[in-house]
Amino acid sequence: MVFVLGTLLEKMNSLSTSDHSSVVSINLFVALLCACIVIGHLLEENRWMNESITALVIGVGTGVVILLISGGKSSHLLMFSEDLFFIYLLPPIIFNAGFQVKKKQFFRNFMTIMLFGAIGTLISFIIISLGAIAFFQKMNLGLAIGDYLAIGAIFAATDSVCTLQVLNQDETPLLYSLVFGEGVVNDATSVVLFNAVQNFDLSHISTSVALQLVGNFLYLFISSTVLGVVAGLLSAYIIKKLYFGRHSTDREVAIMMLMAYLSYMLAELCDLSAILTVFFCGIVMSHYTWHNVTESSRITTKHTFATLSFVAEIFIFLYVGMDALDIEKWRFVSDSPKTSVAVTAILLGLVLVGRAAFVFPLSFLSNLTKKSPYEKIGFKQQITIWWAGLMRGAVSMALAYNQFTRSGHTQRHGNAIMITSTISVVLFSTVVFGLMTKPLVRLLLPSSKQLNRMISSEPVSPKSFIVPLLRNEHDSEVDLDGQNVVDIQDSEANQGDRNVIRPSSLRMLLRKPTHTVHYYWRKFDDGFMRPVFGGRGFVPYVPGSPTEQSVHQWQGEAKH
Amino acid sequence: MVFVLGTLLEKMNSLSTSDHSSVVSINLFVALLCACIVIGHLLEENRWMNESITALVIGVGTGVVILLISGGKSSHLLMFSEDLFFIYLLPPIIFNAGFQVKKKQFFRNFMTIMLFGAIGTLISFIIISLGAIAFFQKMNLGLAIGDYLAIGAIFAATDSVCTLQVLNQDETPLLYSLVFGEGVVNDATSVVLFNAVQNFDLSHISTSVALQLVGNFLYLFISSTVLGVVAGLLSAYIIKKLYFGRHSTDREVAIMMLMAYLSYMLAELCDLSAILTVFFCGIVMSHYTWHNVTESSRITTKHTFATLSFVAEIFIFLYVGMDALDIEKWRFVSDSPKTSVAVTAILLGLVLVGRAAFVFPLSFLSNLTKKSPYEKIGFKQQITIWWAGLMRGAVSMALAYNQFTRSGHTQRHGNAIMITSTISVVLFSTVVFGLMTKPLVRLLLPSSKQLNRMISSEPVSPKSFIVPLLRNEHDSEVDLDGQNVVDIQDSEANQGDRNVIRPSSLRMLLRKPTHTVHYYWRKFDDGFMRPVFGGRGFVPYVPGSPTEQSVHQWQGEAKH
Repeated sequence: MVFVLGTLLEKMNSLSTSDHSSVVSINLFVALLCACIVIGHLLEENRWMNESITALVIGVGTGVVILLISGGKSSHLLMFSEDLFFIYLLPPIIFNAGFQVKKKQFFRNFMTIMLFGAIGTLISFIIISLGAIAFFQKMNLGLAIGDYLAIGAIFAATDSVCTLQVLNQDETPLLYSLVFGEGVVNDATSVVLFNAVQNFDLSHISTSVALQLVGNFLYLFISSTVLGVVAGLLSAYIIKKLYFGRHSTDREVAIMMLMAYLSYMLAELCDLSAILTVFFCGIVMSHYTWHNVTESSRITTKHTFATLSFVAEIFIFLYVGMDALDIEKWRFVSDSPKTSVAVTAILLGLVLVGRAAFVFPLSFLSNLTKKSPYEKIGFKQQITIWWAGLMRGAVSMALAYNQFTRSGHTQRHGNAIMITSTISVVLFSTVVFGLMTKPLVRLLLPSSKQLNRMISSEPVSPKSFIVPLLRNEHDSEVDLDGQNVVDIQDSEANQGDRNVIRPSSLRMLLRKPTHTVHYYWRKFDDGFMRPVFGGRGFVPYVPGSPTEQSVHQWQGEAKH
Repeated sequence: MVFVLGTLLEKMNSLSTSDHSSVVSINLFVALLCACIVIGHLLEENRWMNESITALVIGVGTGVVILLISGGKSSHLLMFSEDLFFIYLLPPIIFNAGFQVKKKQFFRNFMTIMLFGAIGTLISFIIISLGAIAFFQKMNLGLAIGDYLAIGAIFAATDSVCTLQVLNQDETPLLYSLVFGEGVVNDATSVVLFNAVQNFDLSHISTSVALQLVGNFLYLFISSTVLGVVAGLLSAYIIKKLYFGRHSTDREVAIMMLMAYLSYMLAELCDLSAILTVFFCGIVMSHYTWHNVTESSRITTKHTFATLSFVAEIFIFLYVGMDALDIEKWRFVSDSPKTSVAVTAILLGLVLVGRAAFVFPLSFLSNLTKKSPYEKIGFKQQITIWWAGLMRGAVSMALAYNQFTRSGHTQRHGNAIMITSTISVVLFSTVVFGLMTKPLVRLLLPSSKQLNRMISSEPVSPKSFIVPLLRNEHDSEVDLDGQNVVDIQDSEANQGDRNVIRPSSLRMLLRKPTHTVHYYWRKFDDGFMRPVFGGRGFVPYVPGSPTEQSVHQWQGEAKH
């Protein structure tokens, strides 16, 4: 039937004649994704490589092959499209990050994250913009003041996707939450900055303009967060009230997926920071909604979100790698290779300096407010934070394309150089900085690694068997807080089997609730939120002991 | 960031100015999907409604609202696109059907399914084409001989998606496998028929042309099946050899999804019947690959495939409902409402007659070959098969659009009437025939219903607790055969807990292995296929008893 449609379409020379080529490129992309997964698996034990670099390398390799086959005409099958990236690939990645983030760690470091994400990005933006003005004006690239500021915004936008690939939440929870959390807040800041570059008259900076910008940022941050939280709570409420699991697991999974995606798209519709929205939606869903669904829905959603995110990440790197060799862009630059290399080197330098200029001072500031030595950011950790956030990725590419191209073509010389330099920076930072992050983390922070290894291979007490493991599997990964909250409060029932023995140092670290905010939040959460929106301990079906309950559960499942 | 891209794009008046409207329509679609799921859940106990009709009604309702808001200009947000339907929505539905189909039932009735799917579709095609010639030539619609034959093919193409929604595999397994299996084979036949209508000179039908058609059908059927089987086996082999679960569950899930999709797209690339390919890929994956992955991957894949299929089905009906009100098509027909109604009525009549003309004779033929009375298709069942396959859906719509429109517009009067009539037939058959199928099945086959209810609520023997339930959950649903094979052969170890007591009538029915083919297949499967490709009993990690093994399993999971 499909064949018939294809031939019919060809005959009618309608708009859809690209049908066959899109089938070809989908085939190639899916096959390459499979190859990346298999190769990534085989390289798992390798200390240097990771999946994103594998995908980038395969992407570039495929680009070369296509370039040779097509006789130097083109190296990519699909034009780089912001739609594909922002509408389909980014949402699952950011949502999954929110869904699987260690909430305790995230909120404990909330102020530091905000400091890094908002003030840090601003500092980085200013330094890169000033550096670009200082260096590039002499090179006669023909760029305007708006272009320089745009360069600042493009290279101040960190790539959370790269960070997720390079840092491991289980091995370095503090660094992960700081660097990744910063990346999420960075998005909101970038929106405001880009907006400012485009709409505000920045040549006359006054107090009122600055206030307007701050107000704009606060509005964006708060409304995006609220939208995400509301979407998450709504899904929790619907699933708790209607109790979908009674009839079908699939409905629960579908509602969770669709509501998460809806939150992202609604934020985009309202010109908010969709990344922030879907990130907070993920956090709320893992705290409430996830506990309201059936056993198998929990396992399904957890792994499905992770898988979608995983595939989307590989896809992005494959795509960027393939797009990097686009011959058209390089042709403009080929007559001035020295300029191009110089611009790339200057940009890389500015990125390094711009990040150093806020990580170390802001870490110092953050350390001043902390009393416990466990919460302070050590110098080695500061170096790791600085290094781990250096990667620039698809977000920078998308912004650069929008600033420096007119419907995909690079007409002016300066614009062409900026595009190719952005690609070079993205490739270099992802491959080189990315490759070196794993060994660097291992070199600088060996103790934390070993500590965490001990935790993950800790003996399971004989009491806990399959059922509690099933129930807590997600908890122990997603919100480590649950266990410690129980340790601290000792209030909730049926939680005995969760009191697994943990190394005392970590226990001590987490047992210090420096923020009393957290205490009041727990009170509010247990007193009002959980009874209304569900969550751990407030699931609607508690007819017997956990074991019996789970068996009933599975029986119920088996009928559908 | 997204906002900035949006505004940038608007300023540049590039090709992507449809950005905002696509964001709006994605929002609307996702919100409507959520609404359909919630309403479908609330109507679950209703004996008439099902999810597809709910989605159709909501789609039409939304179309009316959009029509009113836009002041009668348009009623749909997206044009009906074959790409969207065939590339994104259909694959998960058909794959999931193959993945969850009761394999024993399907292969037991294989010859009957082939008879219905191939010969039956041909009979239906001939009758509808002849009827169209007889009736429509008098009405002066300006149709050519090719159009009449195309009408035959359009309305001979059953809609497997509708069938899946209306029939329940657990309640009526025989009918489900016959009607749905027929629908899958029907696809291969339709490809050949459409091909023939377009390319062969059918005015001079000779023996050689007929032989060519038969050869074409056999080639298409065999190569599509082989491709699907190879893709499934390859995924099983890769997962078994590389043992992905060691490092990550997500890789297993991703590889299964991507390989399944790759098989579909490869089939489309090679001009085969992609529906057949992905259906057999699903069958092979559920038989081999699914048993090679970790516990949580099994639960995840099973529910993810079901959820994706579920959402895609709702999406299709929503889409068809919304598209039905497209004002442009109806404007052409508004001056001759009587003709339009007459054409619709004639087409509906031809569909009814065309299906009756092969269901009853072919059932009679099929019954001649069966000795056991349990395997014969009773008269009441024949009526149900006839009725349950009457729905025409998105496939017919897609074909009609291609035959009767030039790049989406209906210029000629006859073509406009055929398009609107197709929409009317699709809506009427889905809503009216669909609504009446549930009560009809309940009226004609009450005994089978009760019998199956007894099975699904059978007591679980005290020996079996959570772990075997976990392991067998999929088995008991997907391949009922496993249990009966064990009953017959009594050869496999550790299977004691599967010998759950079942009603004797069903046991007797299934214990008669009429086809010796099946016996040899089992020998081949156990002797060669399973040791190579895995499958039940050949999973690589068997260090202890099932219980211990599963606990290890979960521990391993929790680390990742």
